[in-house]
Amino acid sequence: MAKKLPEPDVEDIDLTTVLSALADPARRTMLTTMYRGPEPFDCSANTWCADLGINPPTVSHHFRTLREAGLTSTTVDGRARIMRVRRDDLESRFPGLLDAVLGRD
Amino acid sequence: MAKKLPEPDVEDIDLTTVLSALADPARRTMLTTMYRGPEPFDCSANTWCADLGINPPTVSHHFRTLREAGLTSTTVDGRARIMRVRRDDLESRFPGLLDAVLGRD
Repeated sequence: MAKKLPEPDVEDIDLTTVLSALADPARRTMLTTMYRGPEPFDCSANTWCADLGINPPTVSHHFRTLREAGLTSTTVDGRARIMRVRRDDLESRFPGLLDAVLGRD
Repeated sequence: MAKKLPEPDVEDIDLTTVLSALADPARRTMLTTMYRGPEPFDCSANTWCADLGINPPTVSHHFRTLREAGLTSTTVDGRARIMRVRRDDLESRFPGLLDAVLGRD
């Protein structure tokens, strides 16, 4: 059965935590891929380990950091790990921020 | 004689470094004060230590972090420490970022 992993409510999304999560090139690359590409994004099939030159535990750590900061939602369904960027929540909290950060790099 | 402290050239301003500098509430408060208020800002006359509840060395550390990230320019003239936000440089590198981060908190 699909299970949504814990994430902060929209009103609890904190700017310092969001900026800290964004202040990492690998996390920005992950987020940019999701932000620009078709969603939801099945991260079980990702090639990020190879693309980013980082190992699976580090990828998992980055996923968790993004989710706990309120940047992404994650649903686990069997072996699939479905992620999406919380665009609307972020836009309502910090208008223009994701576009400013992920629009370029 | 007035002396401008070292700062990165506009093309060397790095997004990761900028986001790390912004991911601190005290630094954002400092920057927001300068960003919204009349510039340049004489930081020798600031009340930030009391306002932010931090000591002078910590204030100095934050000033340095902001300048080295490319967020501010600092000119020292006698006892005066004149700072300004590098709005145009930041806007040319990361359009909309300062507004998104400092426009609210």
